[in-house]
Amino acid sequence: MDPDLTALDAFLDEQGVDGYLVHADSTDSTQYYLSGFDAPDPFVTLYDGDVRLFFLRSLEFGRAKREARAESVERGIDYGYAAYSEEYGPREATYRSLADFLDAHGVDSVAAPPRFPLHAADGLRDLDVSVTVDPEDTVSDIRAVKTDEEVDNVREAQLANEAAMHAAEDLIADAVVEDGILHHDGEPLTSEAVKTEIEVTLLRHGCALDETIVACGADAADPHDRGSGPLEAGEPIIIDIFPQDKATKYHADMTRTFCKGEPDERVREWYDLTEEAYRAALDAVEPGATGADVHDAACDVYEDAGEPTLRSDEGTETGFIHSTGHGVGLDVHEGPSLAPSGEELQPGHVVTIEPGLYDPAVGGVRIEDLVVVTEDGYENLTDYRVELTV
Amino acid sequence: MDPDLTALDAFLDEQGVDGYLVHADSTDSTQYYLSGFDAPDPFVTLYDGDVRLFFLRSLEFGRAKREARAESVERGIDYGYAAYSEEYGPREATYRSLADFLDAHGVDSVAAPPRFPLHAADGLRDLDVSVTVDPEDTVSDIRAVKTDEEVDNVREAQLANEAAMHAAEDLIADAVVEDGILHHDGEPLTSEAVKTEIEVTLLRHGCALDETIVACGADAADPHDRGSGPLEAGEPIIIDIFPQDKATKYHADMTRTFCKGEPDERVREWYDLTEEAYRAALDAVEPGATGADVHDAACDVYEDAGEPTLRSDEGTETGFIHSTGHGVGLDVHEGPSLAPSGEELQPGHVVTIEPGLYDPAVGGVRIEDLVVVTEDGYENLTDYRVELTV
Repeated sequence: MDPDLTALDAFLDEQGVDGYLVHADSTDSTQYYLSGFDAPDPFVTLYDGDVRLFFLRSLEFGRAKREARAESVERGIDYGYAAYSEEYGPREATYRSLADFLDAHGVDSVAAPPRFPLHAADGLRDLDVSVTVDPEDTVSDIRAVKTDEEVDNVREAQLANEAAMHAAEDLIADAVVEDGILHHDGEPLTSEAVKTEIEVTLLRHGCALDETIVACGADAADPHDRGSGPLEAGEPIIIDIFPQDKATKYHADMTRTFCKGEPDERVREWYDLTEEAYRAALDAVEPGATGADVHDAACDVYEDAGEPTLRSDEGTETGFIHSTGHGVGLDVHEGPSLAPSGEELQPGHVVTIEPGLYDPAVGGVRIEDLVVVTEDGYENLTDYRVELTV
Repeated sequence: MDPDLTALDAFLDEQGVDGYLVHADSTDSTQYYLSGFDAPDPFVTLYDGDVRLFFLRSLEFGRAKREARAESVERGIDYGYAAYSEEYGPREATYRSLADFLDAHGVDSVAAPPRFPLHAADGLRDLDVSVTVDPEDTVSDIRAVKTDEEVDNVREAQLANEAAMHAAEDLIADAVVEDGILHHDGEPLTSEAVKTEIEVTLLRHGCALDETIVACGADAADPHDRGSGPLEAGEPIIIDIFPQDKATKYHADMTRTFCKGEPDERVREWYDLTEEAYRAALDAVEPGATGADVHDAACDVYEDAGEPTLRSDEGTETGFIHSTGHGVGLDVHEGPSLAPSGEELQPGHVVTIEPGLYDPAVGGVRIEDLVVVTEDGYENLTDYRVELTV
């Protein structure tokens, strides 16, 4: 994929700086997006109209020359690293050879993404290279608008996600209830066992993932609790899966809440209300609407029903205590944000819609789909029914 | 685990700063180590003799109060975030509420790890908080020396690693050769299929992993090529597995090189030479020796046999083109380094010993064990035979 960096050119012009500098390993999605190179240790990418990679060590040099989407791939030893190291020590040599590399490309001033490492910024500044933060994280904004190829990458990851969700739902559906606890093959069915089933399914579909959430009862009351221990009948079980396709590095994201058997009345009410909030938020998705509009649509439903939200009470620890959604791509959490600060939606934005309610006394309920904003609304990339009881 | 932060106290004293500040999500191992809290989005940890967590958003607040190893868990809204946001916008509000949090704890000056995000450093500096880089990455040095509990965590991950390596070796051993290509169940046996087998085995042993290397022939000539396509008989196949235990977050790391059938003479020579370098490097591991000594031991073997190393030719792209090893812990690559700059080894250092030879015309060979430095030498944490042909 060849990213469209017009907006980055415009940003550099507007700031009056010579280049954009990234210093990170490829788990930093801006690094991967700009360089097209996947490496586990930090390296430098300069964008000065062309993409140029700079490595301190030789280890990745050969592969970078073959694989990176770059005009040039260069090394510290090409810019006096060895001599600098002898004279100033290895750390100072890093900054001096990097500064010489920049100088060789006529770059005296760079903008850098917000999380650019302080040591490199200070090291370059001490050598009279101007380093300013790009507070808008311009490449993130570029990344947020997906090409058709990127949307297809997300779609592919979402297919794996649906297979994994089916595997999890089947485990719960097939479980037998003994003493209020789900059992499978005579053993208590645990959160951990369901996660392993999910993760093995994802691996077999070419996806990796850092974590999965299978959280039951009080665990589910915390949106980021991963869950543990035996699953209970009659309690809401939140399953949130966010795999990364290993080939493309694009993510998907989906949540369903299941209950084995009949939930109590409160959970049923919460679920129906959350489904209403989810549909209201989906209805609000279209180009020109803001992320804040979509978030407000979900908050309206909850607040009308008397549930607290962060909008009605910024300190609340129960109710709807997170934003309505976020962008998904190379990062599982990226722009745009469907939150009070959420900017205008554009065609190509891929976002989650995921309202939920939480209270340690009740548990948690969340429903999450993944959609892409289109010219006239949105396309839902999620093909999975919305149903509480299994 | 309660980390021993004596060295951090000494560093802060020596620098004359009030605290140590980390701003990262918990994939940053220094953040996880200091805070004891696992969260996917960046948060702030202040160490001022006590560990204090600071969150801008409420989402993780409840869980952090329960799970973090912290004296206090605080929030932006407790430090005027909302009012600042109205007056200055959300970005500036971040820095102002963070500065107020620091001020409330009597902290005017902080040191920060090398990769501290530039935006936060500049934001705080603009508010007259002194932010200096800790160039030695003091917490990394502390992390490099493992407690018995941490060594046991690595040991546990290594057991999973060995199970996965056996699964991979068995696939290769059981493969049938047709037209020079390994076959399994009538299909060509690919690098991808072996990786999936490895990863599923690791998952079933409670481990996750980002990547695995199963690289054959020319792919193997590049130490970080992950490999793809059908595996070939008579060619060296490098398998490098570096799982992370999901419960503890500690890693293991091991490499073996296999050949289905007889390799050509050159590969055999390379293997035997690499085994000799590996044994020489292992023999050099003891407290008081430096990482450079261990690296030199491996380089000596290669150079005596006429193979280029980065020590003999810093620009070489073939031969022994990486360092001899690295620390392993919460990060798969951490201190100490077994390289020309490698510092003194101490009991509790967990390091890989992994010499190798590479040439696109031949392929690659690498042997890697994981050892812990003890009071009088080392203990090898790896229990896996060293044998090329399967």
